[in-house]
Amino acid sequence: MYLTRADIDAMERRERAALINSVTGFKPANLVGTANGDGQTNLAILSSCVHIGSNPPLLALIFRPDSVERHTLDNIRATGHYTINHVNHGIIEAAHQTAASYPRDVSEFDATGLTPLWSSDFPAPFVEESLVCIGMRLREEIPLQVNGCHMVIGEIVSLDVPEDSIDATSALDLQKTTTSALAGLDSYYSVSLERRMAYAKPDQLPRRLDVD
Amino acid sequence: MYLTRADIDAMERRERAALINSVTGFKPANLVGTANGDGQTNLAILSSCVHIGSNPPLLALIFRPDSVERHTLDNIRATGHYTINHVNHGIIEAAHQTAASYPRDVSEFDATGLTPLWSSDFPAPFVEESLVCIGMRLREEIPLQVNGCHMVIGEIVSLDVPEDSIDATSALDLQKTTTSALAGLDSYYSVSLERRMAYAKPDQLPRRLDVD
Repeated sequence: MYLTRADIDAMERRERAALINSVTGFKPANLVGTANGDGQTNLAILSSCVHIGSNPPLLALIFRPDSVERHTLDNIRATGHYTINHVNHGIIEAAHQTAASYPRDVSEFDATGLTPLWSSDFPAPFVEESLVCIGMRLREEIPLQVNGCHMVIGEIVSLDVPEDSIDATSALDLQKTTTSALAGLDSYYSVSLERRMAYAKPDQLPRRLDVD
Repeated sequence: MYLTRADIDAMERRERAALINSVTGFKPANLVGTANGDGQTNLAILSSCVHIGSNPPLLALIFRPDSVERHTLDNIRATGHYTINHVNHGIIEAAHQTAASYPRDVSEFDATGLTPLWSSDFPAPFVEESLVCIGMRLREEIPLQVNGCHMVIGEIVSLDVPEDSIDATSALDLQKTTTSALAGLDSYYSVSLERRMAYAKPDQLPRRLDVD
């Protein structure tokens, strides 16, 4: 099926959102934990986490300022800190429910039954049920002129993962952390490793990588 | 295992890259097709495609300017157009091989055996073997001060998908397109739908969505 831009623009709003949100392919499913200056917590599912660099370790998130995610963005601005926590198989329903439009004074932790985990003096809550918990410090916020979204770039300040989930190459094994893959706005997938590839070089054919 | 920022900074370079590239969770695997002003083609696998908006339909890519992806970025600047094509199960090895550091005058299409597909007068090649092919027009390039990366935001101008891959909600069924999920730098996953959730509302418990 071939769609022109005019075909896409003519679609009903929700149908267009369902289609366009699914065309990039699989997305990460993360819960972003924050608190305001008074310690009131907030939790939001985001599918826009993207790698920016490893040294220093930087990740970006995209926020739509006209949505419930705005509470999260306001908290990040207020405290300069936030957490990123993987959605895993056991918490899909609660994680998805954080997307509901709760009033600002309702914590999605309370509303969904997920458990805030405070780590020493870090000013944002982690998610106790997540197996991968990342502590983040705000580095830069970039308003996107093109449609009013905001890009938030932060640096990793801490990383908590299961002991056996780091493989021989130091990569995180996302099957061991039972991390979910997200498609579109609402579809949660379980995954199985199909192929692992060795570092690509111009003078070599593609080779599979064997990792113990 | 708890890692502080100092622990991460002290890691060996390749090990740190393997770890940090895997902490965001699952990523999309896309081939970005471009051509320079002379029609010399280029193809690069990117895992950074992220949704920016549906109306207008906008997607972003992150480019490291010091890498082979630079050929792609130069072509996007030159022609203002590019294509995004899903990596699927049948082309994992060829897609991964596009990451090798080929010289500028070598087309990754020729080097990997993937087939450039030209559509009417669109100035960038699609990938014939991909089942999801998106035509893009450059809207904005944003240099990221934080580490020298470049964010490229483009608008969708065409979308070509299999006839039966759009479901009743207008979302793309990524199992029907055999789209791969990527983890870290080198791990390609196949997926199976675990749960589909209805639109979240504050006054309703999480509900599963049934789609014919």
